[in-house]
Amino acid sequence: VSREERILKRLRDIGEWISKEIAEGRRPYLRLRERSTSNIVYDEESGEYVIADSFAERSAKHMNQIRAFANTVRIAMFVAELIRRGKTATLRETYYQGEAYGVFFKDQQESNERIMDLETLLDVPREDFHIFPEERSFVYGPLEVEVTEGHETKRLRLDVIEDGIAIGPKLTTARFIKESLKEKHNGRYDIERVIAIESGGMFSRLIEERAHERFNAILIHLGGQAPRATRRFIKRLNEELGLPVYIFTDGDPRGMHIAMVIKYGSAHAAHVPGLATPKAIRMGVRATDIQEYKLPSDKLSEIDKKRLKDLRKDPRYQHKFYQDQISTRLKIGRKAEQQSFARYGLAYVINYLERKFRLLEEMREENRLPP
Amino acid sequence: VSREERILKRLRDIGEWISKEIAEGRRPYLRLRERSTSNIVYDEESGEYVIADSFAERSAKHMNQIRAFANTVRIAMFVAELIRRGKTATLRETYYQGEAYGVFFKDQQESNERIMDLETLLDVPREDFHIFPEERSFVYGPLEVEVTEGHETKRLRLDVIEDGIAIGPKLTTARFIKESLKEKHNGRYDIERVIAIESGGMFSRLIEERAHERFNAILIHLGGQAPRATRRFIKRLNEELGLPVYIFTDGDPRGMHIAMVIKYGSAHAAHVPGLATPKAIRMGVRATDIQEYKLPSDKLSEIDKKRLKDLRKDPRYQHKFYQDQISTRLKIGRKAEQQSFARYGLAYVINYLERKFRLLEEMREENRLPP
Repeated sequence: VSREERILKRLRDIGEWISKEIAEGRRPYLRLRERSTSNIVYDEESGEYVIADSFAERSAKHMNQIRAFANTVRIAMFVAELIRRGKTATLRETYYQGEAYGVFFKDQQESNERIMDLETLLDVPREDFHIFPEERSFVYGPLEVEVTEGHETKRLRLDVIEDGIAIGPKLTTARFIKESLKEKHNGRYDIERVIAIESGGMFSRLIEERAHERFNAILIHLGGQAPRATRRFIKRLNEELGLPVYIFTDGDPRGMHIAMVIKYGSAHAAHVPGLATPKAIRMGVRATDIQEYKLPSDKLSEIDKKRLKDLRKDPRYQHKFYQDQISTRLKIGRKAEQQSFARYGLAYVINYLERKFRLLEEMREENRLPP
Repeated sequence: VSREERILKRLRDIGEWISKEIAEGRRPYLRLRERSTSNIVYDEESGEYVIADSFAERSAKHMNQIRAFANTVRIAMFVAELIRRGKTATLRETYYQGEAYGVFFKDQQESNERIMDLETLLDVPREDFHIFPEERSFVYGPLEVEVTEGHETKRLRLDVIEDGIAIGPKLTTARFIKESLKEKHNGRYDIERVIAIESGGMFSRLIEERAHERFNAILIHLGGQAPRATRRFIKRLNEELGLPVYIFTDGDPRGMHIAMVIKYGSAHAAHVPGLATPKAIRMGVRATDIQEYKLPSDKLSEIDKKRLKDLRKDPRYQHKFYQDQISTRLKIGRKAEQQSFARYGLAYVINYLERKFRLLEEMREENRLPP
């Protein structure tokens, strides 16, 4: 059975139980893990935020819960329809479509809450039941995938054009052709790693400098905080294909955290498994790189400093490796963008990455990297 | 001679003249059209903002101009290198790379100003001399193009994957294969039009509902205010392939203006030809559509109203067609998003577009559309 068939079966079971309860004169309810901050715990072992064992009800018994109960069931119906018809919807469309059935969500927030209820109930990310956000980032690289479009199934390589392909519903759920890992493409490369890149400018730069060939890499554009579909795609590349993931972001607190969310997930999505890539490694830009490479840089702002102090207390940053990074950054007191390597010429960043890969390899051998 | 060879020749001529002036003991200067608002005029005939005939100098004679003169020449050198090596750079990289040559721009703004100087001097958009911004939007559709990547030239269709392809440097400068217009693809369609869509959600929606097949269309995602590369791409589709362009944006002042900038350009880029598509038509969402289709809508905010009153005075909106639209919107006083058609089901928007195409056709025949 496919993942989608499992979801459909689960939805049918829930629906049948609700019908039965109503038919027999009882008031149905949904029981799901509570998503409040008090029920989110940091799992030391996996390094991820996960949801704990306190449960909440959306029940037809209580006046103050009946709206949430009915609307979650309504979203479940909509989702079953999406899956059966092989369609997708955005968060925004899901909010609007309620009106077709007399469900008037107060606002987008309310509709999003009910979608999160369904994620919690089914224990899968909303992308698995075909609800996607608006943002898209890109990918470029020598991997072959199989996508299903309408009744057609077709194969394509992720390097059909250097401008990149959007990571949307089709790509997120594409089947990876494992054999394409072993092939020498154009007699030139095999795939060894994934490099996830914060800015569109650096993504284009690395393609132009043939980083995908030099490092045998699939390149992923994050566009700032990565959209969930992109995080899911990265996780799949890591787990299904066994490719190590390297994250290259700006040298500032935001860049650090963009990498951390890819690695260990966000508290906001703690109720959703399937998004974190715990083995991903952030390459830089490190505060020490700013000194070593004499990068054009700016002083940390007061907001940056406060952010770093907050991160120091964040459970995801408790490993000595991150604590040291935060202290060093506060001491050096400066930030630099990844595009600032251009001060040494456009191609210079390749030297930087080369040295970084060697350094990270040494650190791994000496056991100096966080788990 | 190609466009790029023309630019290189022009740069060489300027460089030789500067060398000669210096060798003969004179101080060189650059003479270019002034970009101040007082020198931007609205061209009634084309409906575009264009730059007028007042000139400014960046001269090595005057202390207060020598910095601008030297930095513009420096950017010109950088650009010549980009073109010769077949590379591109972002605005941000152009700012940073100065440091490699001892040019420390005060900030991004200063570097951007010098890039605009070069655009004005050469009379081409910066995309033509290989400088691109960060943002990317997407395209999907049954057109075949030829792109040059490194030493390779290859063909691909813009519908390799339904998630879309990024409109970056490669696609902006791709050669369109005109013959692919005449082919029936998969026995199903020919290309008749371009539909440019404001939001990523609606772009995905239209692909899922097979709008490209139903309307024989190339679909373009704008992502809000369209990046310049996208505006250039749309203009090329319109002019080189003779395809009519329809713009579908949210039903609010911003949506109106997104369409207007595609159509007649922005005052900010008046010094750059090659970006406007004067024949493009905005389909909706019109204020009257909100009433007719009973769309979920919000009241116009005070900012929206002020924006509309400003637009009423804007030279681009002087045609009765737009003046009426603005008055109607102020009278109805409401705004609606393009995704709000989902209240009637996800596929409903197709009916709306179908009716709109018929209506616009009638209006064109009755001469009721603006030029």
